[in-house]
Amino acid sequence: MKKKLNVAVIGATGMVGKELLAILHEQKFPIDTLSLFASKNSQGKKVPFGDIELAVDELNPSSFDKIDIAFFATSSETAKEYCAIASKKGILCIDKSSAHREDLSIPLIAWYANDEELNEVPACRIIAVPNCVAIPLTQVLKPLQQEYGLRKIIISTYQAVSGAGQTAVDTLQQQVRDLFNMREPKLGVFDQRIAFNAICSIPNKGDFDINGNSEEEAKVINETRRILKEPDLPMAATCVRVPIFNGHSMSCLIELQNDFELEAAKRVLANSDGLVVIDNPQRGIFPTPLDACGENKTLVGRIRKAPGMKNTLLLWACSDNLRTGAALNAVRIAEFLCDKL
Amino acid sequence: MKKKLNVAVIGATGMVGKELLAILHEQKFPIDTLSLFASKNSQGKKVPFGDIELAVDELNPSSFDKIDIAFFATSSETAKEYCAIASKKGILCIDKSSAHREDLSIPLIAWYANDEELNEVPACRIIAVPNCVAIPLTQVLKPLQQEYGLRKIIISTYQAVSGAGQTAVDTLQQQVRDLFNMREPKLGVFDQRIAFNAICSIPNKGDFDINGNSEEEAKVINETRRILKEPDLPMAATCVRVPIFNGHSMSCLIELQNDFELEAAKRVLANSDGLVVIDNPQRGIFPTPLDACGENKTLVGRIRKAPGMKNTLLLWACSDNLRTGAALNAVRIAEFLCDKL
Repeated sequence: MKKKLNVAVIGATGMVGKELLAILHEQKFPIDTLSLFASKNSQGKKVPFGDIELAVDELNPSSFDKIDIAFFATSSETAKEYCAIASKKGILCIDKSSAHREDLSIPLIAWYANDEELNEVPACRIIAVPNCVAIPLTQVLKPLQQEYGLRKIIISTYQAVSGAGQTAVDTLQQQVRDLFNMREPKLGVFDQRIAFNAICSIPNKGDFDINGNSEEEAKVINETRRILKEPDLPMAATCVRVPIFNGHSMSCLIELQNDFELEAAKRVLANSDGLVVIDNPQRGIFPTPLDACGENKTLVGRIRKAPGMKNTLLLWACSDNLRTGAALNAVRIAEFLCDKL
Repeated sequence: MKKKLNVAVIGATGMVGKELLAILHEQKFPIDTLSLFASKNSQGKKVPFGDIELAVDELNPSSFDKIDIAFFATSSETAKEYCAIASKKGILCIDKSSAHREDLSIPLIAWYANDEELNEVPACRIIAVPNCVAIPLTQVLKPLQQEYGLRKIIISTYQAVSGAGQTAVDTLQQQVRDLFNMREPKLGVFDQRIAFNAICSIPNKGDFDINGNSEEEAKVINETRRILKEPDLPMAATCVRVPIFNGHSMSCLIELQNDFELEAAKRVLANSDGLVVIDNPQRGIFPTPLDACGENKTLVGRIRKAPGMKNTLLLWACSDNLRTGAALNAVRIAEFLCDKL
């Protein structure tokens, strides 16, 4: 029997926090005590854990007394500040924010892509969880990398509003209600209307890197390269927010080092533990983001060769961005390490 | 003053047919008589033309007596059958369906991309209007082809339901209403739910070509190559239906023959008559499909170099698929030829 742990979830009222709680309950994670924290605004709120509801406390530096493992589903700023405090107390911090993903002294782990890097609890006591596009993308790329080698990656994403949090979900919902009731929709958290529209910058505005990549695009590229240990892999990403509540999709072009047979490449993908191949488009069978919601694997379809392009595969992948692309990845890391704490 | 013409619109009750009528009215097309036709189901229906409403007649072989120019916004089957009848009577047929796009004896004209091919009324009396993605795509590619040459094109689309006609618009609308009223949504014209979902095959199921391309992807590739006179241009397209009522978008990777300066390429695009460049993403300024609705030009933004990829440009383009990608292109052809009839 596994050792029971004192678990904290920081950011428990957010979308990833709630998904974390659902998965911890569903997977029967060995919990002794469960402490929930959020920002001051959420103090006193209750969140579901199985059939019961638990109250949320305000996060403060003394929140980490008697905690073994802390899941962070917060802003980068909060994660930066409080992972430092908690990890110094010896608590294992699993951080879903982007705060630690570029710090090479801290492991960045995408399950089924580079979990083999994780043998024991790292000395730094922090593990970073990748971006919600980088996780399914590296799950798709890893088996192809092992079998054929990677030469170039080009993706365009179709990202759900849940990736931008509860207020973005509320914004889409309210805009749809307004439009269907002949009222002028309010913009909410976006600068453009998201209902029945598409926004080709994530976040909506802000810093772009020297190559003209949005923050999201830069994260996807940098994290994918790091996870796959291909620091110079040529990659282009266009990250787009679409009016979908949950479930990220991406259209991928993958140029391989070596030639491949299409059926063999499909088998390589189908044999990968992180993927489910759903691919009979003639009969209308392929993944949709709706199909991916609640699933623990990344769904892959429309697998085909790009004609006239050497060693090049096209495919479409969908995954639950809150679950497979976030909370489940964090819980898998914790499950692997919980006996080693 | 232009000669006034006897004009017929076939498929006048459909979405492209209605848009055609709106544009003919708005552009003050030189009309003597206007005859509207549709299938038997639509007989007796009225459609707006400016401030008035006009009745629609059932199409039959004698519908073309005393017509100078006929716009077809019908199924391919209907266009095939009736363009043959009308063109034999000397009527200029402008066909928005896909019936004649692969017939090399019939001009396929995308305005601002290959309209220079059109000097006079062709002997066959039929002109084909390209697919609603091929039009904006060739408008984007043409100035780049002229300036730098094209080497490889990779696109992923975000296509509105209006491209699948009124019943698809009704399906999205009804599914949204059902979901927001806690009712199980009916699938309507799609095999998967389209509301808050994405469908990576257009049409939803059906014939795929030998390369695994859907019908829509094959059209986009074949028509783009034909319009640009690059029969061997390497192209990959992934065409996706998204829950947007109107306005198609696409994420494009364009590998050029020659090296380019980013600012020079932006100017090349901005100086093209068919395009409007909207590109300041740091400040949240870029095109959305909603912005494109009602516009006569294709909107382009997120223009950047793909780092680590030779001579490669990335961009995002949006256009009104009913208007710029269909009806307006047909009217432009007619306006150019109307004095030559």
